[in-house]
Amino acid sequence: MTEALIGEAPRLAAVNSLMAAIADTGRDARRGGYSRPVYSSAELELREWFVAEATSRGLAVERDANGVIWAWWDLPAGHDAAADGADPRAGALVTGSHLDSVPGGGPFDGPLGVASALAAFDVLAAREAAGTLARRRAFAIAVFPEEEGSAFGVACLGSRLITGAIDPVRALNLKDERGTTFAEASRAIGLDPDAMGRDELALSRIGDFVELHVEQGRGLNTEEYTDAAGRGPAVAVASSILGHGRWRLSFTGQGNHAGTTLMTDRADPMIAASQAVLAIRSTGAAQPGARATVGRLEPVPGGTNVIASRVDLWMDVRHADDAVTAALVTQIHEQAQRIAALEGCSVELTEESLSATVHFDASLTRALAASTARTIPGAPALATGAGHDAGVLAAEVPTGMLFVRNPSGISHSPEEYVEDDDATAGTAALADALEDLL
Amino acid sequence: MTEALIGEAPRLAAVNSLMAAIADTGRDARRGGYSRPVYSSAELELREWFVAEATSRGLAVERDANGVIWAWWDLPAGHDAAADGADPRAGALVTGSHLDSVPGGGPFDGPLGVASALAAFDVLAAREAAGTLARRRAFAIAVFPEEEGSAFGVACLGSRLITGAIDPVRALNLKDERGTTFAEASRAIGLDPDAMGRDELALSRIGDFVELHVEQGRGLNTEEYTDAAGRGPAVAVASSILGHGRWRLSFTGQGNHAGTTLMTDRADPMIAASQAVLAIRSTGAAQPGARATVGRLEPVPGGTNVIASRVDLWMDVRHADDAVTAALVTQIHEQAQRIAALEGCSVELTEESLSATVHFDASLTRALAASTARTIPGAPALATGAGHDAGVLAAEVPTGMLFVRNPSGISHSPEEYVEDDDATAGTAALADALEDLL
Repeated sequence: MTEALIGEAPRLAAVNSLMAAIADTGRDARRGGYSRPVYSSAELELREWFVAEATSRGLAVERDANGVIWAWWDLPAGHDAAADGADPRAGALVTGSHLDSVPGGGPFDGPLGVASALAAFDVLAAREAAGTLARRRAFAIAVFPEEEGSAFGVACLGSRLITGAIDPVRALNLKDERGTTFAEASRAIGLDPDAMGRDELALSRIGDFVELHVEQGRGLNTEEYTDAAGRGPAVAVASSILGHGRWRLSFTGQGNHAGTTLMTDRADPMIAASQAVLAIRSTGAAQPGARATVGRLEPVPGGTNVIASRVDLWMDVRHADDAVTAALVTQIHEQAQRIAALEGCSVELTEESLSATVHFDASLTRALAASTARTIPGAPALATGAGHDAGVLAAEVPTGMLFVRNPSGISHSPEEYVEDDDATAGTAALADALEDLL
Repeated sequence: MTEALIGEAPRLAAVNSLMAAIADTGRDARRGGYSRPVYSSAELELREWFVAEATSRGLAVERDANGVIWAWWDLPAGHDAAADGADPRAGALVTGSHLDSVPGGGPFDGPLGVASALAAFDVLAAREAAGTLARRRAFAIAVFPEEEGSAFGVACLGSRLITGAIDPVRALNLKDERGTTFAEASRAIGLDPDAMGRDELALSRIGDFVELHVEQGRGLNTEEYTDAAGRGPAVAVASSILGHGRWRLSFTGQGNHAGTTLMTDRADPMIAASQAVLAIRSTGAAQPGARATVGRLEPVPGGTNVIASRVDLWMDVRHADDAVTAALVTQIHEQAQRIAALEGCSVELTEESLSATVHFDASLTRALAASTARTIPGAPALATGAGHDAGVLAAEVPTGMLFVRNPSGISHSPEEYVEDDDATAGTAALADALEDLL
């Protein structure tokens, strides 16, 4: 930040008032934190909030066929890049994130990237007005739907649709827990399911994509980086995203009465599923660098006085080496088959999503590192175990990410926390990086 | 059945057309079978069906303060029992059952007892009209709400309220999975929560209570009773109900991100809960005659990419000796505490309901055995592991039960099944028993 721009501090700190403005939306009284599943009233309220904020800044807001919201800061009329009938938005610089949450999630996962983008835009617009920024290309803030996959089971659904990483027919048939299809949910907010899928125009307009996100581990607060006060740097540049996927294991047994069925006469899928949860944990723990988690498990029918007829569990497996992830899942599937057979049950494995390890664009990442080093001295490069839309987009366009310090490392939980000063510093790093790239 | 009454066959078989009339109500497309939780649209439709059937028979229908529906066949005006200003309904003979179901349950558990009662009434009314039955007391068919406890967690809630076996304040604060209290659900159908609780008048009107119910094990189809064709007798007289209860174990750990949290840094309540499920099974199996089941388990928040912060599981434990049931629960609680501590979690045990072993009224059971032996030669006496409203009422009034043969023994499942001929035979046994008692 130059001396002349010292007056930017309030604009950068505005990220915190933007976050405060949505602090009451989608609170979950039962779980704590926030539940903002895609296209729920809570998430739609946040999307309206974003549209209003972007519109009030003079940005041109559009919703594309896949439900992604774009807020455009077009080049001025007559700019060279808009000559000769070429798309003046082609190859734009895009930043953004998502507004949906996991059930009972924290306030920062997603919205921080959107709020930081709005505040960073204010800084960039002021710099342009002051004559210190001369843009070479258009700029947009994008908001992606269903990043968490918490409603329809597939994470980064918006970015997967836009890039064609998911077959739109499969996406449209995904169901939420009430049995509503993604097609129905999309139609309900005015989208045309038939128009969904890979969007060449949208992709051609993303020259570079930069996503700012709350760090979801304690990566910036490990001994390697912390100062004497135990405080790490506010921002890191992402290096890679661990490959990960979601699989459903469905154990089928014999539903029956819990009081009248002898213990020896049972084929209880809850027993098989519980053994599988333990096998998944121990298999994941035995593989250095791997993660294997069961966070969702649903007995059917789910009555207290009923031996379940089926138990579905979902496992999340991640490793930097995609071959290791695949081997872990194969190993778990074999274990699950042995476990099910011993209980007189059967088991079926379904892959719900799979993402290879993402190494972010080397050139863009170097640029982010250079600009961030000026704004946040000591900002390190960090790999992450969390999936992001930037990771899906990376298969098609250069992408990079900035992570903002998470002191506890807790995320996907009501306890997720970012300090105001760090959010402000993150916005400063984002604004400076965007300026270098514009 | 006497020769003169051979024309009763169609009236007895009407139990099957009554059952057929409700076969489309409350079907559960996702789980299969029926989901008719108390006061849901499906259960309310069944209650309306019962009111219409009873009213069309000239019965006087009333709903009491606890939501129990009573269809009265009063004594004729001028009958001795109604003299001197005494309550003419005091000490009536009552039969009935419930219309709610477990999630994804079968068609017979509950409704068979109600449909058999209606068909048996038709037979008794015809006998009275023919002059072969002279009643000494009033008669009623009762329909109890929330027998399964599948909505608000406490089984036999209607009979527990009417007898005072549950504190109405506790009952009114019970919540369903959407967070609706039983008070709110009761108010929504026009009941006054403040009027709920022990009902002396209602209790004084039950002279004897007889409940017909589908057998929920293969008790009538074991080698002891089956003929050469492998077919057991259609009906049994209940001897006792195994003591049973429901307890909730809540494991609390540290909610976190499934991708970023190292396997070694976790305090995952799903791991503790899975170990507890296995401990509950093995502890139950090690105790002869015991049942211990986990049919319901809910991770919170329940996202695939989220390490749960809490997992609630419900266990159903039963044994004929109440001291053994208590000892099993204590043992399981200790195991759960060790399991939780090893995972860095805590655990809390909550008793949601507890019923002692019920030995049905000896005199009434002898009368039922005598009448049933005439109607169904070879009808045995059977104990059951399933709880029933008759079991709760047994603490206050003489109660007895008839069980109708369940060839597979499967219950609380879409596969629950009763043959038409057995339902007809069950109705005949009920009608004859009621006649003897009237």
